[in-house]
Amino acid sequence: MDTSVEQPLNKSTPTTPTSHNTGVDPRDANTPDNWVPRHPEMIRLTGIHPFNAEAPLSLLMEQGFITPNSLHYVRNHGPVPKLQWETHRLTVNGLVSKPLILSMDDIENLPYKEFPVTLTCAGNRRKEQNMIKQSKGFNWGAAATSCAIWKGVPINHLLKLAGVVDEKTDKPRYVCFNGSDKLPNGIYGTSIPLEWAMNDANDVILAYGMNGERLPPDHGFPIRAIIPGCIGGRMVKWLSSISVTDKESDSYYHYNDNRVLPPEYDMERATKEKIWYNPDYIINKLNINSAITSPAHNERISLSSFVSTKEYTIKGYAYTGGGQKITRVEVSLDYGKTWLLAKLTQPELEHPVVLKRGIFPIPRFWCWSFWSISVPLYSFIRCEEISVRAWDATHNTQPNTPTWNVLGMMNNCHFRVKVNTINQGKEFLLEFRHPTQPGNIPGGWMIKPEPPKTEKTSSTSDNKDKRTFTTQQVEKHNNEKDCWIIIEKKVYDCTRFLKVHPGGMY
Amino acid sequence: MDTSVEQPLNKSTPTTPTSHNTGVDPRDANTPDNWVPRHPEMIRLTGIHPFNAEAPLSLLMEQGFITPNSLHYVRNHGPVPKLQWETHRLTVNGLVSKPLILSMDDIENLPYKEFPVTLTCAGNRRKEQNMIKQSKGFNWGAAATSCAIWKGVPINHLLKLAGVVDEKTDKPRYVCFNGSDKLPNGIYGTSIPLEWAMNDANDVILAYGMNGERLPPDHGFPIRAIIPGCIGGRMVKWLSSISVTDKESDSYYHYNDNRVLPPEYDMERATKEKIWYNPDYIINKLNINSAITSPAHNERISLSSFVSTKEYTIKGYAYTGGGQKITRVEVSLDYGKTWLLAKLTQPELEHPVVLKRGIFPIPRFWCWSFWSISVPLYSFIRCEEISVRAWDATHNTQPNTPTWNVLGMMNNCHFRVKVNTINQGKEFLLEFRHPTQPGNIPGGWMIKPEPPKTEKTSSTSDNKDKRTFTTQQVEKHNNEKDCWIIIEKKVYDCTRFLKVHPGGMY
Repeated sequence: MDTSVEQPLNKSTPTTPTSHNTGVDPRDANTPDNWVPRHPEMIRLTGIHPFNAEAPLSLLMEQGFITPNSLHYVRNHGPVPKLQWETHRLTVNGLVSKPLILSMDDIENLPYKEFPVTLTCAGNRRKEQNMIKQSKGFNWGAAATSCAIWKGVPINHLLKLAGVVDEKTDKPRYVCFNGSDKLPNGIYGTSIPLEWAMNDANDVILAYGMNGERLPPDHGFPIRAIIPGCIGGRMVKWLSSISVTDKESDSYYHYNDNRVLPPEYDMERATKEKIWYNPDYIINKLNINSAITSPAHNERISLSSFVSTKEYTIKGYAYTGGGQKITRVEVSLDYGKTWLLAKLTQPELEHPVVLKRGIFPIPRFWCWSFWSISVPLYSFIRCEEISVRAWDATHNTQPNTPTWNVLGMMNNCHFRVKVNTINQGKEFLLEFRHPTQPGNIPGGWMIKPEPPKTEKTSSTSDNKDKRTFTTQQVEKHNNEKDCWIIIEKKVYDCTRFLKVHPGGMY
Repeated sequence: MDTSVEQPLNKSTPTTPTSHNTGVDPRDANTPDNWVPRHPEMIRLTGIHPFNAEAPLSLLMEQGFITPNSLHYVRNHGPVPKLQWETHRLTVNGLVSKPLILSMDDIENLPYKEFPVTLTCAGNRRKEQNMIKQSKGFNWGAAATSCAIWKGVPINHLLKLAGVVDEKTDKPRYVCFNGSDKLPNGIYGTSIPLEWAMNDANDVILAYGMNGERLPPDHGFPIRAIIPGCIGGRMVKWLSSISVTDKESDSYYHYNDNRVLPPEYDMERATKEKIWYNPDYIINKLNINSAITSPAHNERISLSSFVSTKEYTIKGYAYTGGGQKITRVEVSLDYGKTWLLAKLTQPELEHPVVLKRGIFPIPRFWCWSFWSISVPLYSFIRCEEISVRAWDATHNTQPNTPTWNVLGMMNNCHFRVKVNTINQGKEFLLEFRHPTQPGNIPGGWMIKPEPPKTEKTSSTSDNKDKRTFTTQQVEKHNNEKDCWIIIEKKVYDCTRFLKVHPGGMY
């Protein structure tokens, strides 16, 4: 028995924000997810289905340190598997001496750890990359990060129960995670090194509780992996089995997703050169990142409200991976010539759950930090841009500029908010603009102005096919057996791509 | 007994480059180090004494993966303690049940680990910071990094022998390291968290062997700490004791050195606000860094040698801390608009010592990587600057620009080599310039041209004292009881500062 693990004393759960506004959304009526409760304000990024969504950034920040379940970002590759607590089984097998098949009640009666973890998609802030050049990924804004209190059985405890050999071996070993979702390229799965899973300080758990409730369907009900300090893409949801192996997961998604390729690789070259299998390009730990959340996009301040004593508090979040601490956040109002030291708060350290479990040995930081800095309002008068950068305990920081990559992953350049002056009637106003808005929401300083529209018709991209169509004609091809779209005045028949589209068929 | 530790089968040592040219340097004749063998080509950075030195960058690179002992950078705070193998004792005490006093023979008969580790001073590349504004530190070039094969007893083995409680406790614990060097502010000492020392995967050893020899005096004879992945400043030399404690080292040097402060802090403000004790600013793990070593500073290529097929191979090193892998190095010839992927070699993985000990579990990278990229010679014709950046396994990279800090530590911005065209007789040449040259060696594109010298006399800085002196007059005040210097045409009497000068009294 691992003595460092808390015992299940009782089933009461801490008081934390919980789900609200979570009926079934009418938009899901014609999808396989027509039974999944969802918050209506979540911004859908891949059409109606599958559900890939983030909360509006300001709404997310208003929640504070812990994100309510219904506003936590969601990344689904397909329909949500409809699983039952009573009938679901978790298999533990592979290179173990006593393979296990466990019910959820079995798992809930094992020792548990419960603590806050910030989950972040490797694609957080991808829309900024897509504004440079379209990547293969969809338009995450800066809210593909959220924090909840997760409760579950430590994976090292479970693997020891299954008789894993907990010693150095002469070959590498891995833990493979397999989900229950049936996708075009098989089941979603991935793996991490066994050593990582076995090190108690890494806090890897198989979680069945989220903010004091059972997991919502979108977050992996009844059980998912939580691997603190890593990207969300490794934390397999709707977990059906974990397996100890001597090679990495063979899931399509383990190799073909969650990689940062050098900028010269497009999809074709990456596949031709089998670069997906280069271990240097896998993403596991999060990199250093930060964003400005106040001022919000489109926030305005009237110049007539300026008095010399008035201050504005710039705010945002910062995080990094691997349990490292964010040690410093700085804000520049002059394109990085000088930097102002922001006040940093790490609610994780004060959280009752963390205080109860203790922070020794070396504290790990699994959660986002918040930062703020008050500046005199007049600082904005000559300021064209507010930018932020964070530093971590290794004295690394964020890069100044973005580096595009074909999956649009791990974008972590300085986050920049532009400051414009506009006039509205008699008033002069300062207006703040974020780089982008999530999904297809228009706005953001990275958006290039559209060329003026001069015609109502479009032409096909095939040089041999010079037919033209009216918008009304194109609109008729709107179902899964006959689907046309218009991109930059050219008409495409995309019916045969529907099955492989990351947004799915809906 | 820790089974993961190699047993001392025999005392033969691997074949590695060893010291050469290491007689006593005549420059040391009048210093307490007049018995310490040193390589004459080592560049002294703090006058003659104490010995703080790096090898010329090209000479260092010529040695390849393993640096000979005599060319390994040295950071001494004072005179080298004159210790004897036979009489030296290492004490292990503090929060242990069986304190130990061990002779070097005792230690040599314990299990050992032997493996290559790149050591790097936190001040590597500091001269670039000093060119922006003088920091409190001396002028390290880009060769304050070197790699040797270190052999020693694992610290976790020693601490277990001493009866340390190897379990999580409810208070943090540390291992304090104390040297034997008597300095103006006491003995050099520092500490690391106990958990770090006890984790076998971190490979912390107390080393008595360097490249198959006993340690040279400058490298801590007879025993020093080796803490892979961390800055050299934690690896205490001439080790006299290690102590398990419930608070960090109380050495002056633990708090007042090896910190990165935010740029707005000068020494006065830092001390006034006690910022030295802020744990966020301590440096432990190395950050990501890289440098261009070919072309060398002042290297020239004749334009008449240009033919369309000719290539030039740009080369350099890269490293990072914490055992992370350097996964990608890129070179730009156009101020970072585009980046070329360099070929990366990690000789560590192929090194016989590492192959023998195995690389599982998760491989740790304790050594520098080398990178190279061949470009057509004509690429340089329109190129004004060659820059390099490295990425690590967490997808962090180096910042574009430097951030000055008062100790000039951890400078890791993109390393930039400028390309000039010059003519020499009938020849047109490309000439490459590094940002700086180490110590007081002139040259480097960061050096601002000096204003023309118009007078031979200097004045004191004290407004009340308007006396003027000739250079000849000043030169007479050249001993430790009466020492004058000239800085920017002002004469200073610095006799009373000699004792606290980082360069010492010599």
